[in-house]
Amino acid sequence: MVRRTVLPGGLRIITEAMPQVRSVSFGVWASVGSRDETPALAGASHYLEHLLFKGTRRRDAMEISSALDAVGGEMNAFTTKEYTCYYARVLDADLPLAVDVICDMVTSSLVTAADVDSERGVILEEIAMHDDDPSDAVHDLFAEELWGDSPLGRPILGTTESIEALTRRQVYGYYRRRYRPESLVVAVAGNVEHRAVVRLVTQAFEQAGRLNGQVSDPTPPRSGNPSRALASAASAAAAATAGRGSVRLAHRPTEQANLVLGVPGLPRSDDRRFVLGVLNAAFGGGMSSRLFQEVREKRGLAYAVYSFASHYADSGMVGIYAGCLPSKIDEVLDICRDELEKVVSSGLTDEELERGKGQLRGSLVLGLEDTGSRMGRLAKADLVYGELLSVDEILRRIDAVTLDDVRRIGKELLEAAPTLAVVGPFEDADRFAGAVR
Amino acid sequence: MVRRTVLPGGLRIITEAMPQVRSVSFGVWASVGSRDETPALAGASHYLEHLLFKGTRRRDAMEISSALDAVGGEMNAFTTKEYTCYYARVLDADLPLAVDVICDMVTSSLVTAADVDSERGVILEEIAMHDDDPSDAVHDLFAEELWGDSPLGRPILGTTESIEALTRRQVYGYYRRRYRPESLVVAVAGNVEHRAVVRLVTQAFEQAGRLNGQVSDPTPPRSGNPSRALASAASAAAAATAGRGSVRLAHRPTEQANLVLGVPGLPRSDDRRFVLGVLNAAFGGGMSSRLFQEVREKRGLAYAVYSFASHYADSGMVGIYAGCLPSKIDEVLDICRDELEKVVSSGLTDEELERGKGQLRGSLVLGLEDTGSRMGRLAKADLVYGELLSVDEILRRIDAVTLDDVRRIGKELLEAAPTLAVVGPFEDADRFAGAVR
Repeated sequence: MVRRTVLPGGLRIITEAMPQVRSVSFGVWASVGSRDETPALAGASHYLEHLLFKGTRRRDAMEISSALDAVGGEMNAFTTKEYTCYYARVLDADLPLAVDVICDMVTSSLVTAADVDSERGVILEEIAMHDDDPSDAVHDLFAEELWGDSPLGRPILGTTESIEALTRRQVYGYYRRRYRPESLVVAVAGNVEHRAVVRLVTQAFEQAGRLNGQVSDPTPPRSGNPSRALASAASAAAAATAGRGSVRLAHRPTEQANLVLGVPGLPRSDDRRFVLGVLNAAFGGGMSSRLFQEVREKRGLAYAVYSFASHYADSGMVGIYAGCLPSKIDEVLDICRDELEKVVSSGLTDEELERGKGQLRGSLVLGLEDTGSRMGRLAKADLVYGELLSVDEILRRIDAVTLDDVRRIGKELLEAAPTLAVVGPFEDADRFAGAVR
Repeated sequence: MVRRTVLPGGLRIITEAMPQVRSVSFGVWASVGSRDETPALAGASHYLEHLLFKGTRRRDAMEISSALDAVGGEMNAFTTKEYTCYYARVLDADLPLAVDVICDMVTSSLVTAADVDSERGVILEEIAMHDDDPSDAVHDLFAEELWGDSPLGRPILGTTESIEALTRRQVYGYYRRRYRPESLVVAVAGNVEHRAVVRLVTQAFEQAGRLNGQVSDPTPPRSGNPSRALASAASAAAAATAGRGSVRLAHRPTEQANLVLGVPGLPRSDDRRFVLGVLNAAFGGGMSSRLFQEVREKRGLAYAVYSFASHYADSGMVGIYAGCLPSKIDEVLDICRDELEKVVSSGLTDEELERGKGQLRGSLVLGLEDTGSRMGRLAKADLVYGELLSVDEILRRIDAVTLDDVRRIGKELLEAAPTLAVVGPFEDADRFAGAVR
């Protein structure tokens, strides 16, 4: 069902036919994200994502916006630390239009100085909105504290200062360097025929003059920066040896305290991510998880409490988020630390292991009915994993996870002294020193 | 494809078979929401939604949470002003489990005093979280200002004070009165067979002793309270005559100002909701809409800006949301007022009309691939609309909308003096008096 074609310029086109649906999700993914930015370019990947909606040689902003609105399609884009995606979901008959509009944006945007200036205001608003949501802000603060002033540690949106300083010349140069055909992946899932997609995409890129040049190989999957990964692991290890982590506090006069408590995790290339996935599901992934039961169900201390595991090319993070009244934060932190220790010392129970596997299996299989999530699976296989695991193979790897595997990964990762980020009405970060000891 | 059965107790079961998928969305909907609450019961509908996860005669909270987690299903619930829904999405083979768990919760919850007390903390956390997000808080503030201290004007979550005061006796009594079989609708969409669903649901309700009593007719669709609707329309009319609306300000030291500017809208029973839907899409529903183009695209004054139309049994609202830096709010409000006036005086262009129709058509048709949205369609037809319009009929009504229809509804609704709610770093509501004149 999955077919892949590489055009001479290195452009990859991957499709998955789902004849049982009437819609198509079409995406163009660029192998560029905030971790590719120098400090001077901080926020440029995301800025560019906005600017690609502002106008091309053939279309102004209104024509870009209205093309898919008129046929009732959805079009949007997002930027992460490691990639940027432009996508549309349309009825199958409207696929040619979606291909034309999105390929036009990706290949032929003008990124004029006027657009850079007018969109600067929008980005500054987005940063302010993000900062005003304490549950968003605390995740950025945690990444900053865990990874410091490094590409992974910086916020995807950039900062007010970096956005105010970026020029048209910088952003346009970044665009020309980073959106070459060999760094792009076209991913399509839905009621489509592979050859028809290849024809449409080839036409669109040829029309833009982007397939007439030299022959290139596709950019290999992102491998990260091993030296930085080692350095980060080494510093985490040093912190663990020293017996203490670190605390970062942002004072806000909010009604709730928002916290993230976490440690370095696994890079995406580490096959133990399936073990960590099962552990994370059982530890804090659902209503039956330990964290939910202990913090919310039994004690009523929080509305939102969960754990997460994020993977990047060369590193990752594992953490707990909770939002609670400021007067409850010490009790919530005590419970989080206790639960982490219990997992380190005793792992999971049989029943938790099976439930964790069930959750991973379920979200995988239920997700397959959605053209958007299938489309994302195809693109990420090429951009960051370097292989497309079949659903059966993923299910096999989930099933293979044992209690011993879980205990080992828990001990290896969760024994490190944690990093804590807090957004809330506190004056002094030192009051949390005990929570990271 | 849609089949409906009414059991002797008045319990409705509606299914839609989607043989092309492998999953099922199963929901039990209760005809109860925050607008059914007296001031003393404010927040009780939503409190109850939480309490139904805490334990039944056959299951404790952990058993409820873990049942569907184990098979990788999703289970959740939500409360609105007019109904409450408990739902699960599972693989078709797991439907019997989903029916058993959710029907058990809905029919046989214990709502113990201990659970009421422990969940009280969770609800207070949810209220605090909601208040900490200014873009959420401003919508509640707007409803409060538009409808005053009436059931529709009060927040779904209740207030800290009302939640602190609610007793087990009150909440349990509300549960027994409001969750009778004749007030419930079971809606199911996915790979299911109607008779099998009827059998499973009948068994579950019989096991709970909830179908052995008297014969009842289903509760008719919510009709609202016409006298209140008239009063509200009259007061809006009076405000319009007087040439001024009202302003409500909540001071917060946020980076952005968040605003909702709006007027009374249409009740759900008003067939002109399709006209308003087309108008809303073209006015502020997508990237190509007037508001997005004027506020964000051309001037870079906001990241999030959109219009909305909400319908209730006896009334509705139409409004604009925007988040912007405090220094930009006067300019944003000026543009919003200008754009409202332009719609009142000139309606839409041909092209906008067609694009608005396209957007409504597209979101309808694309939504049909999702079992959850089909399930919701079935339930709402019975609970609030009183009829299930076929997709073709809805498409026909959208297509029938004319420029004249749009101009008339714009003039009728949008000429009223607007109500304004603002959450942001301002001291004095009077500074916005000009915006509602």
